[in-house]
Amino acid sequence: MFRTHTCGELGLANLNQEVTLAGWVQTLRKFGSITFVDLRDRYGITQLLLDETQHSSLAGSPLGREYVIQATGIVSERSSKNLQIPTGEIEIKVGKIVILNKSVTPPFTIQDDTDGGDDLRMKFRYLDLRRQVVKKNIELRYAVNRAARNYLHQKHFIDIETPFLIKSTPEGARDFVVPSRMNAGQFYALPQSPQTFKQLLMVSGYDRYYQVVKCFRDEDLRADRQPEFTQIDCEMSFIEQNDILEMFEGLIKYIFKEVKGIEYKGEIERMTWEDAMWVYGNDKPDIRFDMKIANLKSPIKRKGAVEAGGWIIANAGFPVFDNAETVLAISVPGGATWTRKQFDELTDWVKRPQIGMQGLVYIRYNEDGTIKSSVDKFYSEEKLLSIASYCQSQKGDVILILAGREEKTRKAISDLRLELGERLGLRKKDEYTLLWVLDFPLFEYSEEDNRWVARHHPFTAPKPDQISTMINHDPVISNPELYLEHPYANIKANAYDMVLNGNEIGGGSIRIYQRELQEKMFDALGMTREEANHKFGFLLGAFEYGAPPHGGIAFGFDRLCAILGGSESIRDFIAFPKNNSGRDVMLDAPSTIDEKQLRELFIEIRTEK
Amino acid sequence: MFRTHTCGELGLANLNQEVTLAGWVQTLRKFGSITFVDLRDRYGITQLLLDETQHSSLAGSPLGREYVIQATGIVSERSSKNLQIPTGEIEIKVGKIVILNKSVTPPFTIQDDTDGGDDLRMKFRYLDLRRQVVKKNIELRYAVNRAARNYLHQKHFIDIETPFLIKSTPEGARDFVVPSRMNAGQFYALPQSPQTFKQLLMVSGYDRYYQVVKCFRDEDLRADRQPEFTQIDCEMSFIEQNDILEMFEGLIKYIFKEVKGIEYKGEIERMTWEDAMWVYGNDKPDIRFDMKIANLKSPIKRKGAVEAGGWIIANAGFPVFDNAETVLAISVPGGATWTRKQFDELTDWVKRPQIGMQGLVYIRYNEDGTIKSSVDKFYSEEKLLSIASYCQSQKGDVILILAGREEKTRKAISDLRLELGERLGLRKKDEYTLLWVLDFPLFEYSEEDNRWVARHHPFTAPKPDQISTMINHDPVISNPELYLEHPYANIKANAYDMVLNGNEIGGGSIRIYQRELQEKMFDALGMTREEANHKFGFLLGAFEYGAPPHGGIAFGFDRLCAILGGSESIRDFIAFPKNNSGRDVMLDAPSTIDEKQLRELFIEIRTEK
Repeated sequence: MFRTHTCGELGLANLNQEVTLAGWVQTLRKFGSITFVDLRDRYGITQLLLDETQHSSLAGSPLGREYVIQATGIVSERSSKNLQIPTGEIEIKVGKIVILNKSVTPPFTIQDDTDGGDDLRMKFRYLDLRRQVVKKNIELRYAVNRAARNYLHQKHFIDIETPFLIKSTPEGARDFVVPSRMNAGQFYALPQSPQTFKQLLMVSGYDRYYQVVKCFRDEDLRADRQPEFTQIDCEMSFIEQNDILEMFEGLIKYIFKEVKGIEYKGEIERMTWEDAMWVYGNDKPDIRFDMKIANLKSPIKRKGAVEAGGWIIANAGFPVFDNAETVLAISVPGGATWTRKQFDELTDWVKRPQIGMQGLVYIRYNEDGTIKSSVDKFYSEEKLLSIASYCQSQKGDVILILAGREEKTRKAISDLRLELGERLGLRKKDEYTLLWVLDFPLFEYSEEDNRWVARHHPFTAPKPDQISTMINHDPVISNPELYLEHPYANIKANAYDMVLNGNEIGGGSIRIYQRELQEKMFDALGMTREEANHKFGFLLGAFEYGAPPHGGIAFGFDRLCAILGGSESIRDFIAFPKNNSGRDVMLDAPSTIDEKQLRELFIEIRTEK
Repeated sequence: MFRTHTCGELGLANLNQEVTLAGWVQTLRKFGSITFVDLRDRYGITQLLLDETQHSSLAGSPLGREYVIQATGIVSERSSKNLQIPTGEIEIKVGKIVILNKSVTPPFTIQDDTDGGDDLRMKFRYLDLRRQVVKKNIELRYAVNRAARNYLHQKHFIDIETPFLIKSTPEGARDFVVPSRMNAGQFYALPQSPQTFKQLLMVSGYDRYYQVVKCFRDEDLRADRQPEFTQIDCEMSFIEQNDILEMFEGLIKYIFKEVKGIEYKGEIERMTWEDAMWVYGNDKPDIRFDMKIANLKSPIKRKGAVEAGGWIIANAGFPVFDNAETVLAISVPGGATWTRKQFDELTDWVKRPQIGMQGLVYIRYNEDGTIKSSVDKFYSEEKLLSIASYCQSQKGDVILILAGREEKTRKAISDLRLELGERLGLRKKDEYTLLWVLDFPLFEYSEEDNRWVARHHPFTAPKPDQISTMINHDPVISNPELYLEHPYANIKANAYDMVLNGNEIGGGSIRIYQRELQEKMFDALGMTREEANHKFGFLLGAFEYGAPPHGGIAFGFDRLCAILGGSESIRDFIAFPKNNSGRDVMLDAPSTIDEKQLRELFIEIRTEK
């Protein structure tokens, strides 16, 4: 050992002990013939006091920032204490100092508020990782990992490793593939998830499985996506939906407790997908604040459970509302006193290309009970009051109304709601609110191929009472115009997403475990029987030998860590992330390989596309 | 939940309770109108008793083996108890039975002694995994995983995930590569180990790192190798060799305790590589038994620490010994009474092509003190007695002697020693003996390229007192004939292997952390500076910014589990292994991929080789 103690553990209890520390020079401060060195390691910072003797021992090779040194000395009480840090009451009067390794000047400062830009920090990620803020993230990630494992272990889940070199069965996202040297012209694929393997493990009787596992998707990268990412992947047998929800509420609550010291209180709300879409405008609502969406016009496409207020705004001669497919409103507390300038700014905000609305209608419901709107020409005070009443507005609120095509308007009002939640400080960083979203549609319609696609994945079961609908109808869509009238359009999935503060942190489903139903699903997705057998024959086969009812869930581990760490970016929680072009700029990967390697793999670089 | 209890937990304490179980039909036994069903799940087996009523409820759809059923009934005391299993005192008098899923007849019996051959079991691995013997292995693997993590956590190691899509830097084994869609003509590589990343984490100050991590090597597969395998990968900073040895002795002892209930007693022996090679004939000796090798002739190539007995056998006119490069002997307890037939069989054994010796000389040192040999013509009784004395033989032993080329003879006597250890029952399954092998040569000589190759890997440091030898000499070998006289030939690595019962279970080293030394290493391996920078520039760069002294170790997790499970084959401990051609026969992977996929990746299949 190069040390007797770490830089995080010495205090007044150690006074007069001789100790040896090793670490990095964080700062150097000279005062005449003495120098103070802040010595840093993973565990903390300890102040060293170097006198004339040590200086001369370093003659010709003075210390610098980020030098690695070993210092032996006596623990002494500081004259000016720093009570901000655990070791701040002592310093080491150094008797001997050894430089273990030198450092050239780092390309950016190793501090929380570094002067290094993103590219530079990624290139020198090994230096970026030294910064306290980054280290905290990596440590938090480990704490989450550990807590998840401990909980799952207590619940009798076992970690079983599934293979990384598997078969390419692209369905949804693109696979990364690996050419095989021993099987000319053939390729492995890297798993997008261990989905089929964990199902096979249920068929094998393993009952409760988990894995914290890398997955791979070769997708065009958006700001916060990585080609390789980590899931907490779980599966259980002999369960129904409610068993899964309870088990994994428990997991997340346990993680909150262990990692954040937060006792998560209260029931976790369960909301149907339909409600989430109509009341919050998206399928992962942030329910830390209310500001629910009022639907002022009957939905045209779908008849959902949400009552619509079409009658209120109809027949007023306001063409924008009359012609709109959808009219949606939110009621913003305190907004009645906003200035004209503020409304103009907000109108510009909804007109930005990212939102794409034509305009914004507002109704001020003043504290004194009067009501004024930007559409007074069309709506009487009485009418406005009944709109306010329908929107459950309070005096002092402003009602903001958007109108347009259904999907776009819903997305816009959802974005507006989140923006206002943010501006009004309703999305509190230290408040965590969980939510289950349930009953997703099993299928989405693909216009391009005139067939169904699985909204979740092809192994998700329909709700138990809709299995017969699925079995007893032909999935073929004879008239594309009327696809919404096909019985498959209304089948709900036995699936669930866990949402935390407006982010989907996990999702899963009860699985199909009957060969007949699984084949019907593949039919619906437009796969021929041959294709289904070629790709998933092993799973269809497995279902013939006594497959138990089963289901599971996978949590996006990177995102969960980011949210718990109070960050927007998953990259901050990955030790060695890739950039938006999928490159590791530190390694400079990917890179070219030798012709010899290509030859061995029976492939060549394509010259024409 | 489909059950109130599992099949492993009910006993007399539950008498008269109504319970619901779910699981697989292991066996069906009919006695007139009643049927006994052994119901199996992950946790055990419980006997169900079905009477006439249940039978009629299943009318038209009788039960079969491996059916998945749910049964509700009353816990009752059995008339004939089976005390071999925890649930053997009770049975369930079933009131209601539901078939959850049917099963066709499995292709082999789901029993410990199955009738299924290897190929069939691999194709239907999901059924093979149901067998109790296989399940035990998978559960043991999890227990080892869990124990390792718990120990390392207690010791302040943290699990940090390293990337899977990295850069191809083939050095030693072949990389698996992954074509990049976003970077035409470029490839990622899958990691052969996280070696450079864990070193970077030490440079970043993480101090103690671990990971249970998949690694990939595209090698021709020998019987017990897999293209993807798992390591327990660890690294520490500010340590010296002894710190690592103590830390990881602790790990393995902890695993023994937690997983096998074995309190490992006594010191763990530490042996130099030189000693291992001369005293046991290989670098991973099984020291559960003695039978050390006596070296009857001075080693020609190397002068090691082992005293040689060349004087005893010299000048006797026996041309086999006189002409042999090496003459090695072992002394086998009780062998003096072996029959002529037994010696003939053993002679045939060493003459087999796998061993390849010309013959076997033996000396019987009888209980009565007389001594007789197969070479009496050349050696007097007195001479034989002095050979026996040199070999430290006891009365009743037989001395077996092999002669020939050094390497071959050493390997042969080592194989013979292990074979006899096996035959004499000295390699006890339930006895575990650990050993550290130290001081490996840093370099091996590559005749093909007339240069040095790293025996361990290019990041291993020489022993501290040999760093200057390495720095101060030119690695170029001017005269290939005399490579043994080059100063590099005698440099020992600061490396260590952990050996368990004759198997290498882990290995590691103290690493180079100085740029100058690392560059010298790359020089020695025949890399140009450009090449070194292209491949490992990030690491060389990192060493300039304050790299701490560090070192680590990696354990072969698959093998460790196999040994602890008492098996020779790692495949038995991998849920979904590949066969010797690297194929997953269950998935039928690798497989061809679409032309569209190839195009997107800018590659095509090579038609000529």
